[in-house]
Amino acid sequence: MREPFSEFFGVLILVLFGDGSVAQVVLGKGAKGDWNNINWGWALGVMLGVYCGGVSGAHLNPAVTLANCIFRKFPWKKLPVYALAQLLGAMAASLIVYGNYKSAIDVFEGGQGIRTVGLDTSTAGIFCTYPAPFLTKTGQFFDECIGSSILMFCLYALLDDGNIGAGNLTPLGLFFVIYGIGACFGSNTGYAINPARDLGPRIMSHAVGYGHQVWTAGDYYFWVPVIAPFLGCTFGGFLYDTFIYTGDSPINAPYMGFTRFMGVHAKARRTAMV
Amino acid sequence: MREPFSEFFGVLILVLFGDGSVAQVVLGKGAKGDWNNINWGWALGVMLGVYCGGVSGAHLNPAVTLANCIFRKFPWKKLPVYALAQLLGAMAASLIVYGNYKSAIDVFEGGQGIRTVGLDTSTAGIFCTYPAPFLTKTGQFFDECIGSSILMFCLYALLDDGNIGAGNLTPLGLFFVIYGIGACFGSNTGYAINPARDLGPRIMSHAVGYGHQVWTAGDYYFWVPVIAPFLGCTFGGFLYDTFIYTGDSPINAPYMGFTRFMGVHAKARRTAMV
Amino acid sequence: MREPFSEFFGVLILVLFGDGSVAQVVLGKGAKGDWNNINWGWALGVMLGVYCGGVSGAHLNPAVTLANCIFRKFPWKKLPVYALAQLLGAMAASLIVYGNYKSAIDVFEGGQGIRTVGLDTSTAGIFCTYPAPFLTKTGQFFDECIGSSILMFCLYALLDDGNIGAGNLTPLGLFFVIYGIGACFGSNTGYAINPARDLGPRIMSHAVGYGHQVWTAGDYYFWVPVIAPFLGCTFGGFLYDTFIYTGDSPINAPYMGFTRFMGVHAKARRTAMV
Amino acid sequence: MREPFSEFFGVLILVLFGDGSVAQVVLGKGAKGDWNNINWGWALGVMLGVYCGGVSGAHLNPAVTLANCIFRKFPWKKLPVYALAQLLGAMAASLIVYGNYKSAIDVFEGGQGIRTVGLDTSTAGIFCTYPAPFLTKTGQFFDECIGSSILMFCLYALLDDGNIGAGNLTPLGLFFVIYGIGACFGSNTGYAINPARDLGPRIMSHAVGYGHQVWTAGDYYFWVPVIAPFLGCTFGGFLYDTFIYTGDSPINAPYMGFTRFMGVHAKARRTAMV
Repeated sequence: MREPFSEFFGVLILVLFGDGSVAQVVLGKGAKGDWNNINWGWALGVMLGVYCGGVSGAHLNPAVTLANCIFRKFPWKKLPVYALAQLLGAMAASLIVYGNYKSAIDVFEGGQGIRTVGLDTSTAGIFCTYPAPFLTKTGQFFDECIGSSILMFCLYALLDDGNIGAGNLTPLGLFFVIYGIGACFGSNTGYAINPARDLGPRIMSHAVGYGHQVWTAGDYYFWVPVIAPFLGCTFGGFLYDTFIYTGDSPINAPYMGFTRFMGVHAKARRTAMV
Repeated sequence: MREPFSEFFGVLILVLFGDGSVAQVVLGKGAKGDWNNINWGWALGVMLGVYCGGVSGAHLNPAVTLANCIFRKFPWKKLPVYALAQLLGAMAASLIVYGNYKSAIDVFEGGQGIRTVGLDTSTAGIFCTYPAPFLTKTGQFFDECIGSSILMFCLYALLDDGNIGAGNLTPLGLFFVIYGIGACFGSNTGYAINPARDLGPRIMSHAVGYGHQVWTAGDYYFWVPVIAPFLGCTFGGFLYDTFIYTGDSPINAPYMGFTRFMGVHAKARRTAMV
Repeated sequence: MREPFSEFFGVLILVLFGDGSVAQVVLGKGAKGDWNNINWGWALGVMLGVYCGGVSGAHLNPAVTLANCIFRKFPWKKLPVYALAQLLGAMAASLIVYGNYKSAIDVFEGGQGIRTVGLDTSTAGIFCTYPAPFLTKTGQFFDECIGSSILMFCLYALLDDGNIGAGNLTPLGLFFVIYGIGACFGSNTGYAINPARDLGPRIMSHAVGYGHQVWTAGDYYFWVPVIAPFLGCTFGGFLYDTFIYTGDSPINAPYMGFTRFMGVHAKARRTAMV
Repeated sequence: MREPFSEFFGVLILVLFGDGSVAQVVLGKGAKGDWNNINWGWALGVMLGVYCGGVSGAHLNPAVTLANCIFRKFPWKKLPVYALAQLLGAMAASLIVYGNYKSAIDVFEGGQGIRTVGLDTSTAGIFCTYPAPFLTKTGQFFDECIGSSILMFCLYALLDDGNIGAGNLTPLGLFFVIYGIGACFGSNTGYAINPARDLGPRIMSHAVGYGHQVWTAGDYYFWVPVIAPFLGCTFGGFLYDTFIYTGDSPINAPYMGFTRFMGVHAKARRTAMV
């Protein structure tokens, strides 16, 4: 039971900081931080979530768990347990954030019973992501795929001792990865790049009264951040293992001799770095 | 005498940076930094306070000292000494900040003898925290509890070698913890999360002329940041030891077999991190 | 083939974050980050690009590769291969950024077929740099030379174990180098300081429809960020090896006894640091 | 000759980034970064200056050199050489910044021959500091003393292995020290806290045409940042050695048994940190 608890609390910390940072920006109307504040919140949320959830490997993201199953021999049977723990952690965190900011939400929405999606006075965006209005479904999907591909590619680079490898700086490196995705690929869809982080708070926000619009908004956008990260993370992991990785990976196995052919200089030449 | 001095100077550095950052933002009317500046000030104040106060363990917070007494066998008899040193450090720091910004405060408040609380031209908020007007007493208390629970939970994670553990990056990790609490849970009550940091400057601000309103403001808010952090830090430490920690803790003792039952995989699997 | 792929993906990550951050700032009209956001994007892009491209030494910049050929015995015959891989990586990244933000660019420029340079509604600046209007050609050239000299000087300092040396903190140190160049020497020309990073996206932006103005703008500015970084990086490396470096360098060879004469205290006295 | 060159280039890098960041903020009128940008510039300038100037111990500041002479047995005879090298480094850097931003200064000041101090269109503040108008001479002096005391106290803490000690994270720790002084004690006088950093560029700005007002402005303020840092750094070092330090220091010598009396627990108890 330690591993699910570890994932649960890791994602709890992650979403507490993440959703909390959005709440503060939205409800503070800019006086308590702007867009950068949101990037800080999610980035340090992931970093500290990793420190808290290290006992279970700190996946904190079902799509990362899936990629680890495919490329890093993580046991497939643990996938559903991890994903459930991650989902529940995200739900619990968003509920705490909702409780903590309830008074401020009442003031912002204009009353105790009022909870809306998509208006200027709406607060649904605190909890889960909604896409920019000009995006097509393809654009939404493409954006989430890119973000999660970058996440997985960089994550495998940070963890790869055959490359430079970040070692004990990995959580800090992840801070920069998440900050970067938010600062560079965050404006289209709000960079969910994590099915648990988005679906959990969406379920919660439906439950506390934001209504069915949490599902229908953005032309039924809700399934995009659930599905796209699985594809993106798998693709990012595939790219890294194919072109960079020299460790043990199914991509590197004999029957897929492509990578093996490409090079033999496994050891990063650190002395000549940059 | 080294330990109280160490706590005194650790908190002195912490509050010098913290209160100084608020002073610069308030008195500069936005031209010398905004809300983010305050987050930077408190976060790096804690980080550098830890480096300065390491000889005594760098608690810097009576609520952290209490949690260490409960969960980490820190001697109970040192609690009052530490708390007093921390309180005096915070008072001294806020007095230095007051002296340094006295001319600017005179300009901002509108005259040498004028010191006010709660107006647009007030400067009392430089020194200690005042809650948002829409919060109930429960809301105030809940917010401070959440902030200090997160602080303690993350702090124990950073220090836990059975988890990933931050090692020599712990002060930097604390920078992100404090920044995160300020960026994500800072807008309701101003995130005191430390009885000494809030009560010390409040006493000082009363003494230099801000009047009895420092105690009555926010419906006698002053006791909330004194009491709530003790509960929050204790709860955060309890959660960490119950669900994650495998080291020596009363929560892990045989007569509380709950945690022991939950798992045996004490060692974090770092290779599969994230 | 591993090394070119490594440079390709390192620059890909670098320019994905870099161009992506500019896209978000320009297209978001300030609501999704300001100038600082761009500094963050390029700085963390370099940092993470170094982690991703470590197998090939993570030059990520033809001018850095040239300096390494001159001062660090990097094989000259690899220079064209590296430069080509870097150029292609930058082109691929800018194409991905273009694809991802195509809908938002359509909205910003005012229509699907509209792509402009130098107007208030232009988006060409997302991909490559354009100089401030008041600069002479000399001023443009001087600015790019200074930026790339600083880059190379600091980079060799970070890598020099005979100095303090950043060790495994080198990628983080580079974050600060790039951030600093952007924050302190970025407003004149947009700090390309990297021929591949600028020329690649310029070719791409010409190809997708921004027209011949990408070449003529700023009085045919395009060649400045292609040529100046080679001079700047060489000069920066020359300065470092002449005045600080005590390792193996042609500047330090016997027939150039100048440096040797200047001092013998090769080992940095770290205990007295700062 | 290696040590003076090392100090020269260390301060050169420091002031290049520092003055460059102010130039970009002032000349960009807020569009290329705000007050935070200046904090980033000076903070990372010190950090990277330390990496560049490590061969000589990276003092980068005559007041730090003085404190090291008093408290850390640094040879007194090197003090004038170090101070001169630091001053020349700051002059050279400010001249480069001036040359680089000359066109932009012309535009900002309103013409090629126009160089002013203290007006809305003045650019003298790019190079050296000028105090806020409401400060008395005492207030100016007090502010600079506090800033440099904090600098020295924190620096000795970062370097103290008998405390927690920052080890190879010291340059990064200094980033936060400088950022903090700028964010919390920077608005009154502009936080020179370094005689070389302020006097050097002031001489340069006089030489290039800003006139005698660089000396008379702020009621002959110029001597404050030259004198006060020596007092402040000495006081900060004295405080640290008296109350925290257990290493070899004249304050700790037998004939000053005060400190010795105060405690014997030399070793920081790192396990209980924070």
